[in-house]
Amino acid sequence: MGMRAAIAGASGYAGGELLRLLLGHPELEIGALTAASSAGSRLGAHQPHLPQLADRIIEDTTADVLAGHDVVFLALPHGHSAAVAAQLGTETVVVDCGADHRLADPAAWQEFYGGEHAGTWPYGLPELPGQRDVLRGATRIAVPGCYPTSVLLALFPAFAAGLAGPDVVVVAASGTSGAGKSLKPNLLGSEVMGSVSAYGVGGGHRHTPEMEQGLSAVAGTPVRVSFTPTLAPMSRGILATCTAPAAPGVTKESLRAAYEAALKDEPFVRLLPEGVWPATAMTYGANTAALQVTLDERAGRVVAVIAIDNLTKGTAGGAIQSVNLALGLPEELGLPLTGVAP
Amino acid sequence: MGMRAAIAGASGYAGGELLRLLLGHPELEIGALTAASSAGSRLGAHQPHLPQLADRIIEDTTADVLAGHDVVFLALPHGHSAAVAAQLGTETVVVDCGADHRLADPAAWQEFYGGEHAGTWPYGLPELPGQRDVLRGATRIAVPGCYPTSVLLALFPAFAAGLAGPDVVVVAASGTSGAGKSLKPNLLGSEVMGSVSAYGVGGGHRHTPEMEQGLSAVAGTPVRVSFTPTLAPMSRGILATCTAPAAPGVTKESLRAAYEAALKDEPFVRLLPEGVWPATAMTYGANTAALQVTLDERAGRVVAVIAIDNLTKGTAGGAIQSVNLALGLPEELGLPLTGVAP
Amino acid sequence: MGMRAAIAGASGYAGGELLRLLLGHPELEIGALTAASSAGSRLGAHQPHLPQLADRIIEDTTADVLAGHDVVFLALPHGHSAAVAAQLGTETVVVDCGADHRLADPAAWQEFYGGEHAGTWPYGLPELPGQRDVLRGATRIAVPGCYPTSVLLALFPAFAAGLAGPDVVVVAASGTSGAGKSLKPNLLGSEVMGSVSAYGVGGGHRHTPEMEQGLSAVAGTPVRVSFTPTLAPMSRGILATCTAPAAPGVTKESLRAAYEAALKDEPFVRLLPEGVWPATAMTYGANTAALQVTLDERAGRVVAVIAIDNLTKGTAGGAIQSVNLALGLPEELGLPLTGVAP
Amino acid sequence: MGMRAAIAGASGYAGGELLRLLLGHPELEIGALTAASSAGSRLGAHQPHLPQLADRIIEDTTADVLAGHDVVFLALPHGHSAAVAAQLGTETVVVDCGADHRLADPAAWQEFYGGEHAGTWPYGLPELPGQRDVLRGATRIAVPGCYPTSVLLALFPAFAAGLAGPDVVVVAASGTSGAGKSLKPNLLGSEVMGSVSAYGVGGGHRHTPEMEQGLSAVAGTPVRVSFTPTLAPMSRGILATCTAPAAPGVTKESLRAAYEAALKDEPFVRLLPEGVWPATAMTYGANTAALQVTLDERAGRVVAVIAIDNLTKGTAGGAIQSVNLALGLPEELGLPLTGVAP
Repeated sequence: MGMRAAIAGASGYAGGELLRLLLGHPELEIGALTAASSAGSRLGAHQPHLPQLADRIIEDTTADVLAGHDVVFLALPHGHSAAVAAQLGTETVVVDCGADHRLADPAAWQEFYGGEHAGTWPYGLPELPGQRDVLRGATRIAVPGCYPTSVLLALFPAFAAGLAGPDVVVVAASGTSGAGKSLKPNLLGSEVMGSVSAYGVGGGHRHTPEMEQGLSAVAGTPVRVSFTPTLAPMSRGILATCTAPAAPGVTKESLRAAYEAALKDEPFVRLLPEGVWPATAMTYGANTAALQVTLDERAGRVVAVIAIDNLTKGTAGGAIQSVNLALGLPEELGLPLTGVAP
Repeated sequence: MGMRAAIAGASGYAGGELLRLLLGHPELEIGALTAASSAGSRLGAHQPHLPQLADRIIEDTTADVLAGHDVVFLALPHGHSAAVAAQLGTETVVVDCGADHRLADPAAWQEFYGGEHAGTWPYGLPELPGQRDVLRGATRIAVPGCYPTSVLLALFPAFAAGLAGPDVVVVAASGTSGAGKSLKPNLLGSEVMGSVSAYGVGGGHRHTPEMEQGLSAVAGTPVRVSFTPTLAPMSRGILATCTAPAAPGVTKESLRAAYEAALKDEPFVRLLPEGVWPATAMTYGANTAALQVTLDERAGRVVAVIAIDNLTKGTAGGAIQSVNLALGLPEELGLPLTGVAP
Repeated sequence: MGMRAAIAGASGYAGGELLRLLLGHPELEIGALTAASSAGSRLGAHQPHLPQLADRIIEDTTADVLAGHDVVFLALPHGHSAAVAAQLGTETVVVDCGADHRLADPAAWQEFYGGEHAGTWPYGLPELPGQRDVLRGATRIAVPGCYPTSVLLALFPAFAAGLAGPDVVVVAASGTSGAGKSLKPNLLGSEVMGSVSAYGVGGGHRHTPEMEQGLSAVAGTPVRVSFTPTLAPMSRGILATCTAPAAPGVTKESLRAAYEAALKDEPFVRLLPEGVWPATAMTYGANTAALQVTLDERAGRVVAVIAIDNLTKGTAGGAIQSVNLALGLPEELGLPLTGVAP
Repeated sequence: MGMRAAIAGASGYAGGELLRLLLGHPELEIGALTAASSAGSRLGAHQPHLPQLADRIIEDTTADVLAGHDVVFLALPHGHSAAVAAQLGTETVVVDCGADHRLADPAAWQEFYGGEHAGTWPYGLPELPGQRDVLRGATRIAVPGCYPTSVLLALFPAFAAGLAGPDVVVVAASGTSGAGKSLKPNLLGSEVMGSVSAYGVGGGHRHTPEMEQGLSAVAGTPVRVSFTPTLAPMSRGILATCTAPAAPGVTKESLRAAYEAALKDEPFVRLLPEGVWPATAMTYGANTAALQVTLDERAGRVVAVIAIDNLTKGTAGGAIQSVNLALGLPEELGLPLTGVAP
């Protein structure tokens, strides 16, 4: 006990998931809850699955309210984090669950998001080579996007081992919570149920440069990603199919061996038994990734498929995992390994 | 009136969809209904959405029962069609909704299905270049697989115009009816709802050689397909994301122009307005395909996304479309253009 | 051909379903399409499942635009129909798909809807005793609410035969399209999927007095309904469980006989074989009702369960059925008997 | 630590949920895992959401394997528990998650289940008046059915306070996991998705006498329940709408006061704020019930609506709650209060 965490954006889906996990975290106490339009209302009106916090009142998102916490999670729309973070001292671990501090390249930021680049923070994906060292003791953390989390975890072992070429193709299906609580017609239940749809096709999705940045760093050479996201009729979960040309000489055995080596000590990334392919239900509500890889010998491509929960490992759980490192706590503290199924 | 159609496999999903459509077909009357294990029962016990046929009794699938019809639809498990068809004369149009007569290459048949190759029948995808002439007057028709229907429709315009290279990557999401009424644990509602899962990954899905066969014919050169199917929490629908390297010099404009030219007279394949991407709900219960294409300039790939209803355009509707051609009827007769939405 | 129908509210779910059915109606041509906030846009932007109408432009809902049609369907929010209808002459059949003209009792209107009562029009449920005569030649039609359609069809045979007492309890599950395209948080896919919820509990739902009005008329005595609606994770469909005290001496046999007698000539209401209970999938997209009834001898109650498609039989199909009568056309014209399943 | 629990039926849905919860229980260690047809296989093949136990081998369900544990959970088909339990000594807490030991009346057992009555064990619903005392120190526990759990929690405060009469009507919607992993056609995803269906209508559902037994005991007078279960397109959750005639003089205020008094110290049953109605999503994966009650003044009925997770509070969580009491542990130990949403 003792350390306190504030959540800005407590009425949204990412905020709710942070609270769900923090309620089970033995070292982080829940402090201030803030939001924009829902300030002044009870948390229970927005997060009825969290009865312990039902009567907590949501405050306005201001530096005054957020100050004095050990950790501040910012689950805000893109473009809102930098201004808040600037008012918080470096004694506070500030965690940006939005996109503002993910991209190192200002030009990529400008192309995909527009506006001024807020700068780059340590990237909160501990599984990437060397990244745990970066995160230990960090006071600013950029939580990866949910899609990049899935794609980087699925492909980094192949690129780190030099087994894949740079022409990556990713198609991912996401549950609707990835789009947040936005009141858009295409997110209505009547539209979503019984239908899978594509969006952001052709290289325009904002997570594309983030995937390229991460894979290029691991590969040591520029990697291009053709990324197509789709929306599936489920609330949670990402299933990403990630393929890349196989390097000459790669075999199914060498590929699996590389993945086994890369992942053998990872607490949250599970390489499934051979022949078993991921389903998002394997990771529902858990901070885990379920991963499988094979070589498509006919087509000469590495094919890795990964399932995560976009709100847990893809957002709130991944954020807390990085915070644990930043605070010097055990990395796995308070993070569920078990999913809820069926 | 006057022409009669028998349906073998009337208690399954493909059989039910054939019946639904034939009930609205002005020139084909429904004759014998047959099945294997459900022979002797009322059709209403299996297809409660077809009240007009509720009291029809299902018979055994024998040549005697099927004989004397103008059209016989075989909606049987793989490997069962050839023996039945051999007993039906060439005055009968025999339509194989299974895989037995799709592949021209016996080696591919052997590799993906095993057992003896039953031979090749005219391929029932009228939209492929020159294929309408093949189907007019045909007495044997091989209905394409549901995934190949989607992929061939999505990519043939690019290959026919020489705008795409042969390294194709396809990831498709299918509704569960594509797996039929099989009593398998992974098809239970409890497992399927709220979850997207991958299967048949790495080049092993049986529809892969069928896609390669069709695209190679259009391209005039061997095309390889890396195909990953996924199961989505919906009963019907396929959304296929199909990408291929862009040929040198291709622009978004030239790509769209090629698709517009290829599809302008197609009654069932709709190129969506620019910026609109397909959703399976657009085609629910309809014999249509909703298609969009763009150039991913960053990654240098053509990206085509297509939605169909796997049971309608992907199976039963596509079958009737080909039968209309075979019988000299208008191609569009009795086939719904409107989907059921939301 | 020859008769033309205008649709006011063409961009909504009821409007879309009217258009889907009218596209298959042999005697009604689609005329003007109007709406409020979506006026000026292409219909295809709102109803992408209706490709034939994709390029039609939606106009403003004004009497000028609607005038000159043989039929005008008003699929407008409550309170908007009366003003429009007042400007349309009695040579036009005006069909109110909203609630404005359903209730005969101004006090009930005042209590449940508030504001001035717009008056009562012929009630568009042809199956009710004597109602076909009322609807033949009518020039104004009040389309029943979707829930009352289901409940009245399920219970009128019992009350008409004097087999049920007036203490009715109804619990119904509806798909989300019943709530329209409203942008409310509780209708988001993320909230709806995987969850059943109650609303309007305790006698407050606006469809309650409409059920009581209809059942009381059939029973010849006041009937009270305790009605609880729930929202289920599906786009379409209502399943209503309707119970009432069994009158003394009622047996399972006499109950079934009464239902068989009442429904034997009904084209759209199917009494299922004994032992088969309704599922909404039986009626998806069809103008049918699937109904079963039994006697709970332990509890002394008649239990009738009914499934309809809330948008088809529950709104647009029921409306067209009544219009067919009003125009002197065959009642079943253009209305689908087959559902889309699975 | 120290106490060990065996699970018989570890490959099923109830078994999986027991394991998920026990993995988070600080005082109960997971011992032997047994099953029938899946004996010999890895648990990971059946419960892929429990990675910590993936490599555990399932054993045959025999007394030898189950002996020596402090607690044995029997998650077996009806009729299998008594024989196993007879071989386990009274030093073991035996928990029957099936129906065998729920009913006190042998005639009711005979009527609804058939075969010999196995006897009655302490009923594992601690919230019922006086029931905690019965469960403390018990060595045999009959876990209530999932539907009775919901109905008894929803109505006991009204009956205990004398505010409701004995003519109860219950309609409940359940997720498909309530039917277990049975390979039945009506449980296939294709059939379930997009559809709500009724079953066991008319007083025949086996949970009916259990509801009557519990309510009659609380009321001190025989209570009759007309119960209609329905299957909803979701994996988990029950929403039960429970109505009963209001006793003379009951007001909304007196009703709410009675519920507040009855539930104020309950850790797992939440009376929602006035005006808020339950959704199953509020309790997904949690051992909680979300409850609301009102008086339908028009119809003169008490209407209580309750949401639970059928696998958690409705089965495995409820079982562990009772085991905590039996073992002298804090009742809430290891049981989640937070649901997983959205």
